[in-house]
Amino acid sequence: MEKNEQTWYSAITETAPNSIRLRGYRIDELMGHISFAQAVFLAFTGRLPSEEEGRLLDAILVSGIDHGTTPPSTLAARTVASCDVPLTSALAAGILAIGKAHGGAVEECMEVVRKTVALADDAGITLDESAERMVAEAQASGRRLPGLGHRYHTADPRALRLIELARECKFRGRHIPALQAIESAFIKAKKKSLPINVDGAIAACLCEMDFPSSAGNGFFIIARTAGLIVHILEECAREEKMRKIHPDAAVYDGPKERKLC
Amino acid sequence: MEKNEQTWYSAITETAPNSIRLRGYRIDELMGHISFAQAVFLAFTGRLPSEEEGRLLDAILVSGIDHGTTPPSTLAARTVASCDVPLTSALAAGILAIGKAHGGAVEECMEVVRKTVALADDAGITLDESAERMVAEAQASGRRLPGLGHRYHTADPRALRLIELARECKFRGRHIPALQAIESAFIKAKKKSLPINVDGAIAACLCEMDFPSSAGNGFFIIARTAGLIVHILEECAREEKMRKIHPDAAVYDGPKERKLC
Amino acid sequence: MEKNEQTWYSAITETAPNSIRLRGYRIDELMGHISFAQAVFLAFTGRLPSEEEGRLLDAILVSGIDHGTTPPSTLAARTVASCDVPLTSALAAGILAIGKAHGGAVEECMEVVRKTVALADDAGITLDESAERMVAEAQASGRRLPGLGHRYHTADPRALRLIELARECKFRGRHIPALQAIESAFIKAKKKSLPINVDGAIAACLCEMDFPSSAGNGFFIIARTAGLIVHILEECAREEKMRKIHPDAAVYDGPKERKLC
Amino acid sequence: MEKNEQTWYSAITETAPNSIRLRGYRIDELMGHISFAQAVFLAFTGRLPSEEEGRLLDAILVSGIDHGTTPPSTLAARTVASCDVPLTSALAAGILAIGKAHGGAVEECMEVVRKTVALADDAGITLDESAERMVAEAQASGRRLPGLGHRYHTADPRALRLIELARECKFRGRHIPALQAIESAFIKAKKKSLPINVDGAIAACLCEMDFPSSAGNGFFIIARTAGLIVHILEECAREEKMRKIHPDAAVYDGPKERKLC
Repeated sequence: MEKNEQTWYSAITETAPNSIRLRGYRIDELMGHISFAQAVFLAFTGRLPSEEEGRLLDAILVSGIDHGTTPPSTLAARTVASCDVPLTSALAAGILAIGKAHGGAVEECMEVVRKTVALADDAGITLDESAERMVAEAQASGRRLPGLGHRYHTADPRALRLIELARECKFRGRHIPALQAIESAFIKAKKKSLPINVDGAIAACLCEMDFPSSAGNGFFIIARTAGLIVHILEECAREEKMRKIHPDAAVYDGPKERKLC
Repeated sequence: MEKNEQTWYSAITETAPNSIRLRGYRIDELMGHISFAQAVFLAFTGRLPSEEEGRLLDAILVSGIDHGTTPPSTLAARTVASCDVPLTSALAAGILAIGKAHGGAVEECMEVVRKTVALADDAGITLDESAERMVAEAQASGRRLPGLGHRYHTADPRALRLIELARECKFRGRHIPALQAIESAFIKAKKKSLPINVDGAIAACLCEMDFPSSAGNGFFIIARTAGLIVHILEECAREEKMRKIHPDAAVYDGPKERKLC
Repeated sequence: MEKNEQTWYSAITETAPNSIRLRGYRIDELMGHISFAQAVFLAFTGRLPSEEEGRLLDAILVSGIDHGTTPPSTLAARTVASCDVPLTSALAAGILAIGKAHGGAVEECMEVVRKTVALADDAGITLDESAERMVAEAQASGRRLPGLGHRYHTADPRALRLIELARECKFRGRHIPALQAIESAFIKAKKKSLPINVDGAIAACLCEMDFPSSAGNGFFIIARTAGLIVHILEECAREEKMRKIHPDAAVYDGPKERKLC
Repeated sequence: MEKNEQTWYSAITETAPNSIRLRGYRIDELMGHISFAQAVFLAFTGRLPSEEEGRLLDAILVSGIDHGTTPPSTLAARTVASCDVPLTSALAAGILAIGKAHGGAVEECMEVVRKTVALADDAGITLDESAERMVAEAQASGRRLPGLGHRYHTADPRALRLIELARECKFRGRHIPALQAIESAFIKAKKKSLPINVDGAIAACLCEMDFPSSAGNGFFIIARTAGLIVHILEECAREEKMRKIHPDAAVYDGPKERKLC
């Protein structure tokens, strides 16, 4: 193709007749050989993940897949789905509800975690001292600290498991410790506990794997897209059109608690 | 909770303080033990996939992850992203472009494949004969057959690989043969070839795994959500705001062709 | 501009530096001289409306502006707005809820009304006879007749007023009578009343003004966009983030009933 | 209705069977008596506009109705419309492109205009002096001043006409002068001209009518919804599905320049 002022560039996927290459790899060669989470890692970063990185990203995606009928994104998606519209319309409505208040604090939390580490390095102080300064600064300027606290959970099981898994996978960077230092500094400063939430744990794990902060919000959205679609299909299959959806009146009637093995 | 006329039911995820169970399994137990694709399978069907089912669903998701700068969903997402809006706004615009004409023919193709199998069974005829009747009927009523043909590819590498992989994974049902019979019947009737595309191959594979047709369009959307997000991030990182996006003027400048091993 | 295979055409607005002409008229000349409804008429049809057409279109737009807290589009928009996202995100979610089940039956109703008139003309029968055939046909095929019935209203005040206003404005075509004939035929066939709703009255009025059916759904959407935006602003101003919105628990606390003069 | 913790309040529209009252007025009484722009004013503010306010709001809405094929919102809407999806999907995509970079600077500009007036009042200085301080401050902090400059127009005909019309309608507040003072201060500081654009003129007019800044972005969106819908209808009527839309290759083929009288 002749290059001119209209030319623009993309480094993601090269498409030609009967050939699609993601970051250089033939997509039909990737199929069957790497998992979707590994392909997502490749698409975002341009390189194949290590086994540990792939496993941790898989866990991040599993952690965000669904949260039942409580999130506003789910309620928005089901409300729109009840109007007899295409799947994509209901899904788009759900995705549009994801933002700073719900599912969209990962990028900001990655920034805070990185600043905490950088401050410790630059000032020659400990992560605990650095975290205390970050918390004090947030308090002084009235900003909420992203990655802490959850409406439902006092100990978010997804956050705890992600941090444990990062350790199992031998991620030994300073980002998870930095987030834990922030959690502790918050307790010290406010005399109340606001534990690490799933956004925070995802953020710290993504920092450990060197993702740019700008990419942070994408993973929760990919994961939750699956959950939203399942809710939309259930809404269409089980409910009447144009029904009133009472957010507190949902009762779970799926399989009882069971264990993997 | 007391049940009354406002009560509604959901069988997907049970959420309680510090506990989230997807189809009965604790999400923190799933994390690290099953892949995202396996969790998607569980979320959609209520059961854990076999190893082969998980592998085939992973391949389906990998197949749809991205198609470079050519799809209208990608161009719509990048156009909106260039306006300095949140990630979710650009992503929703991209998802809204997915429909019958682009990425959204899986459900319909599953119906056609299932009807072809059912007709063969009910009428006691071969799949080839049944497929010929389906093609003739579509022609008579002026309907396009879903799952065949692609704007870019004469032999869609993703479709070929998915069918091969289904065989490797020992799926031996009649749905993939039915789709292939439709492809052959089309050539016979029209004297031209319109090969199975990725929508068609996904549809046949989902039928082999017993997914309901209504779920069909969801998987491509989950997969492509990842690709759209990567395009949006690239647009924001590399391009000026409010630029004019010339659809034919994109040049790939990512890694050269490379092999997995 | 040199024309080539990339050239495409638009007949709506000609834009050049310091000049914007809508359907040939300078937009700065239109401003202050015609109302927004008249400009909408011009944009859709390419001609300026008569005074009566402008007045009727204004009334159509006023009729659709809002319906309080009951519609699912309003609830979806407010649910998304409660997540601290941009106005456009919440508005898009609301608009995506508009479809066949809610606000989107105008196009289909215009088709039915036009078929009823055409059948009467072609078969040399009265509108009543034609309407009876249309109702019988819809019943036989299990289709719902668009434009009749409302969840809340047994006599939709907007529909009654639109029909009255069309008469005041001297629209004397056969489309409003055709819709009324359908309403009567329905009562006769089903022994129950399903009165003309606002979608139906808008449809008949648009037919009287010769709008193409394909344009039908647009006017309600333009009108309701205003109402949705006001709800989003109220949600952001009066309510807490991430609140649970109980659809039956809204209480009106605005101005008491008052009269125009 | 019994009030409890689920109760929430809305002051916009009271709906009861066979009765819809917008801000206290029966909607069927408003229909035929006030224009859509007047109803929009009522919906936003809770009071009926004066004749001049209604005329100025009509002009604001007419000013934003369309800008041909150049805006990214139009290109996004047409790209999605070409995929054979519902009108609402394409419209939502278009609306999601409206943001700070395109059509969404009104709110911010209202804030700047109001601050300029307040600073003059508080510091006992002239609007020119206040505007110079505002421009200096924006420059120092690297912020773009909203409401000035346009990609296409060096003298935006809509902005000029709105300001003229506000004078005709006897709006004699200090907000339009404040915006003009900012325009002049910018020239003085930067030695180049960046004239008032349509966002800026709308902002100043809305300030003159005492709208809250938070409402500012809504009016352009209502207006442009009409233009986007007309583009979507034209795309579906005139173009092939899944076409490539070259942003620079559009040729206007509508009515030649003509005058209102």
